[in-house]
Amino acid sequence: MSLLVVGSVALDSVQTPFGKRDEMLGGSAVYCAIAASHFTRVRLVGVVGEDFPRDAVELLRTRRIDLSGLEIKRGKTFRWGGVYSEDMNERTTLNTALNVFQDFRPRIPDESRRTAYAFLGNISPSLQLNVLDQMERTRFVAMDTMNFWIDRAREELLSVLRKVDAVLINESEAKQLSGNSTLVKATRIIQELGCHTVLVKLGEHGCYHVCRDECFVAPAYPLEVVRDPTGAGDSFAGGFMGYLSQVGRSDARTLREAVVYGSVMASFAVEDFGVEGLVELTDTDIARRYEEFRQLVSF
Amino acid sequence: MSLLVVGSVALDSVQTPFGKRDEMLGGSAVYCAIAASHFTRVRLVGVVGEDFPRDAVELLRTRRIDLSGLEIKRGKTFRWGGVYSEDMNERTTLNTALNVFQDFRPRIPDESRRTAYAFLGNISPSLQLNVLDQMERTRFVAMDTMNFWIDRAREELLSVLRKVDAVLINESEAKQLSGNSTLVKATRIIQELGCHTVLVKLGEHGCYHVCRDECFVAPAYPLEVVRDPTGAGDSFAGGFMGYLSQVGRSDARTLREAVVYGSVMASFAVEDFGVEGLVELTDTDIARRYEEFRQLVSF
Repeated sequence: MSLLVVGSVALDSVQTPFGKRDEMLGGSAVYCAIAASHFTRVRLVGVVGEDFPRDAVELLRTRRIDLSGLEIKRGKTFRWGGVYSEDMNERTTLNTALNVFQDFRPRIPDESRRTAYAFLGNISPSLQLNVLDQMERTRFVAMDTMNFWIDRAREELLSVLRKVDAVLINESEAKQLSGNSTLVKATRIIQELGCHTVLVKLGEHGCYHVCRDECFVAPAYPLEVVRDPTGAGDSFAGGFMGYLSQVGRSDARTLREAVVYGSVMASFAVEDFGVEGLVELTDTDIARRYEEFRQLVSF
Repeated sequence: MSLLVVGSVALDSVQTPFGKRDEMLGGSAVYCAIAASHFTRVRLVGVVGEDFPRDAVELLRTRRIDLSGLEIKRGKTFRWGGVYSEDMNERTTLNTALNVFQDFRPRIPDESRRTAYAFLGNISPSLQLNVLDQMERTRFVAMDTMNFWIDRAREELLSVLRKVDAVLINESEAKQLSGNSTLVKATRIIQELGCHTVLVKLGEHGCYHVCRDECFVAPAYPLEVVRDPTGAGDSFAGGFMGYLSQVGRSDARTLREAVVYGSVMASFAVEDFGVEGLVELTDTDIARRYEEFRQLVSF
């Protein structure tokens, strides 16, 4: 099986207490695609400008990511700059230049329309709907979103929600979307809005997953050093969707395993700047950390 | 083995979105003792006034709790009144009348001084030290504390910390005590302050436990209805310490099991008002929920 990933491709400038990096390869589709590439064949759909660095393309190619859906448009690549607080719990955006991403209209290449697994990164709900319209015979689609769309495009967002198999969302967004500030109820309400599988990302508290009537809780990997939290959620999505695509199933047991693979990939991502923590991983690294997650919860 | 529990005995008036109760039996020692009484023989040390209701005494006796350390003093019993917000995430204290608890000087009965397991509920660190001085040959002692003592009696608190085997603390207190706002680091710093086992209570996110170099994460039980969160932490302590005392061991594996029993008892406590959720439980109820916790994290 293979996985289609739609989202942003960016050049990020990030400052954390551990250092500063300028114009690193980033964006939701990139983190998700690289994380997923350890599990399955990935087709990336996104847009970049003519200034997109050749070595960034090379890096994606070394991960065998299909770039036929990566449009190169006249203009500049999306850029984002941010700084994290001393304790990493707060992030301030210093600058955002959407550039060619402003008018992103995802176009799924003909040969990718029947990709069975898809992840809709954080783009406007109307674009997410448009992607779904271009797809045929999907088996499992997950979406991400953010507070901005919950505020500004709630109805379209609910339309996407009813068409996908899983929603990945962080805790404050789950509470905002549901209008309820307790985790268990918020999740139940989101299910009632039309999506049977909901995954709430809790940062250093791990992840709360419900699939129909079944709950599953996965911890976060207890890292003492987090160098750069950027991309944690999308790396989670990559591990989660990559694994589902690899095994070609999405029953309750497989979803639990996928949640743990998501947590594994997120933990690797935040250990280093940008995608550096993800690119060089071996299957053994991933398998070892997966087993560490089992140890972490076993009693 | 048996368990000594020292702390407050109170009459609580509580209002939550699910109702209102006046002058219910409460207090840290009471929640802990009743939860622990499902596992082991409990000796309660506390103080009440002459107005302490006879049926409260009877209730504690039905749980076979040894009340020889419960002092009855001239005056009134400690009273607390509070109201929870609609989403239960905030609690406002309406009134506190310490009454006889103001001058509580725990006196451990001679026949209880060699109790192998002990829980020091949230009282002043100097009183906790005084209890430790009265004890002989303890095998495992755990302490609770609160923001007030971290602020006002830090040095005494650190002295207690160095003398006990485990500290049970909630997340904001852990961050305050350590001066670090990330969970994993805060916990490590508290270990370095002198206590090898630290248990951070995360409310609806469960519990993070470290014992020397080993981490363990337990989820919270996903309850859709929480009727009264009062006493959750002390009920956790009761399940945790009660189980340790029952099995007479405190190796790393046993501590993990104890953390889950703590989580089980906390989940029962908050399902009903006051101690109502704890009193009538059967061994089967407890065993069943323990297995549900295993399901919740298994993959």
